[in-house]
Amino acid sequence: MRSIFFRRGVLYAIDSSRLPYREVWLRLRNARQVASAIRETRVRGAPLIGVAAAYGLALDALGYKGESVEKLKRRILKTSELLRSVRPTGRNLSWAIDRCLKAIEGENTVERVKKRLLEEAEKIAEEDVETNLKIARNGLKILRDGDTILTHCNTGGLGTVEYGTALGIIRIAWEEGKKISVIATETRPLLQGARLTAWELKKYEIPFKLICDSMAGYVMSRGLVDKVLVGADRILATGHVANKIGTLTLAVLAKHYNIPFYVAAPFSTFDFNTRPEDIPIEERSPEEVTHVAGKLITVKGANVMNPAFDITPPELVSGIITEKAIIQPPYDENILKVYQM
Amino acid sequence: MRSIFFRRGVLYAIDSSRLPYREVWLRLRNARQVASAIRETRVRGAPLIGVAAAYGLALDALGYKGESVEKLKRRILKTSELLRSVRPTGRNLSWAIDRCLKAIEGENTVERVKKRLLEEAEKIAEEDVETNLKIARNGLKILRDGDTILTHCNTGGLGTVEYGTALGIIRIAWEEGKKISVIATETRPLLQGARLTAWELKKYEIPFKLICDSMAGYVMSRGLVDKVLVGADRILATGHVANKIGTLTLAVLAKHYNIPFYVAAPFSTFDFNTRPEDIPIEERSPEEVTHVAGKLITVKGANVMNPAFDITPPELVSGIITEKAIIQPPYDENILKVYQM
Repeated sequence: MRSIFFRRGVLYAIDSSRLPYREVWLRLRNARQVASAIRETRVRGAPLIGVAAAYGLALDALGYKGESVEKLKRRILKTSELLRSVRPTGRNLSWAIDRCLKAIEGENTVERVKKRLLEEAEKIAEEDVETNLKIARNGLKILRDGDTILTHCNTGGLGTVEYGTALGIIRIAWEEGKKISVIATETRPLLQGARLTAWELKKYEIPFKLICDSMAGYVMSRGLVDKVLVGADRILATGHVANKIGTLTLAVLAKHYNIPFYVAAPFSTFDFNTRPEDIPIEERSPEEVTHVAGKLITVKGANVMNPAFDITPPELVSGIITEKAIIQPPYDENILKVYQM
Repeated sequence: MRSIFFRRGVLYAIDSSRLPYREVWLRLRNARQVASAIRETRVRGAPLIGVAAAYGLALDALGYKGESVEKLKRRILKTSELLRSVRPTGRNLSWAIDRCLKAIEGENTVERVKKRLLEEAEKIAEEDVETNLKIARNGLKILRDGDTILTHCNTGGLGTVEYGTALGIIRIAWEEGKKISVIATETRPLLQGARLTAWELKKYEIPFKLICDSMAGYVMSRGLVDKVLVGADRILATGHVANKIGTLTLAVLAKHYNIPFYVAAPFSTFDFNTRPEDIPIEERSPEEVTHVAGKLITVKGANVMNPAFDITPPELVSGIITEKAIIQPPYDENILKVYQM
């Protein structure tokens, strides 16, 4: 199942915020709607956000009724800044936008710009599927029969165009007959693990147990976890991994209990220009913490912190599974080496 | 405010499960009702459970209309087994029951047994208040002006007769003018941090921020936590600490980030006869994980794990704050030494 596709001027995307209760498909008709869908985490998952943003630029161009290519390009540039701003921590979003802007650099008619943007979005979507399958093939090497894999947030087909990154590896391994099982963290505050990962695992019939985030230490201390496998929103040249809040906690625990901790992500997630201390950490609305399923779960007006991401340092990462290879430490040497392969 | 008291044949206890939305007082008229209130976590917190169980035995005796002291004692023994079974991990519950049974050993009239059980329950309740104040005095020594203390679950006046253990220290420190602030974990699955600790901290006007359990690694990595301070449900002679699920995760994180990790508990929580591997870990209903505020948060029929407690090994514990002193490692020597002081 594709979680995003373009048909007759409309971008269709599955609404992750309604799952697992209802399968609702969003119909996005302009870039503003795409930006809102990303901000409201209806469209989510670093790779999927990149693809959605690319289609967002295409929609923006298609919506232009004038005849000045300069005006159109200025408009696209402005829209690209709006799209970049909605989820500052992730990398794929900026990567996809940069790629689309580059694609139209030489184009000097309105029609060509429109055509090239839609082509580029389709290409990015196609590549996401292929890339994920390559990641899965590489990831298979780290899984053994009988392994129980702990995963966090949702890194499956719902967060990509298809298959997924970390969960994509798990899915392909299962389909190829590897006898594995999964422990999925519920992933507060937005419960992507409980809602989306559980939904996907049930669909693929992969055996799994759901735990609260606080139980990760317990399951690791009892020897119930063989590997931790997560996705990433941004990976630096140093090997620092920005990912869903809670990832760092899992990485520290895995280190303490000598459990391999793997990150799976395409190269579109890599950022070669930013220092760890300069990664912007998105602070989201307090209501995500104070309310669950629309209900207040604490005292009225409680102060909260709601960082949506954290940064795992390279010394806690056993390997990064990409479409080209599994990158091993030292990351400051090997990431660039594999990238240039 | 006392969270439990006995008046004219009725045991009144605040219903923790209804807070912070409503302040409901339970009226418990027999031991069966006490057992249910504990099982449903309406009455919760290791020290409070001990006190409630003692009153439960008194109610059981008071409800006996016969005249045979032997029959009454057999009845009490049977009831004490029921009460012990409802929360197997904690220690105070068994400790309080043993104390009550010992108190009536020599009594040989029905009236005397009834009188002694009620006296002993009242005494245990009074002692809890005094003990907590002593714990708070000792705990003050570890807190400095400007400290931010991360705490887990609820260890305040709602989980004891008054003041609380870990949160009692924080409260007294604040009342004595120490400029401190608190980070409270929400404590899934039952959200005692979000519901109860936030409620108490707001009442005492102590500045605090609420976080999801998954954010603990983030706040520690950013240098936002000076000390971790938690309670305990059972502490062994080896220094192993059984406490609310999630405690072990915090302890591992604190160790990784060189943040002192303190446990506050009365000696009634200590268990000198059990080995770490023999502590029973209560596995509670899956609905506590799959539902929040009555709403399903995952796919129907998802398998879950729901251990209510975990065990933190002594090497992760910086000190145990008791009513006699702060016990430092090595625990296998010092716990007994302080106990005999």
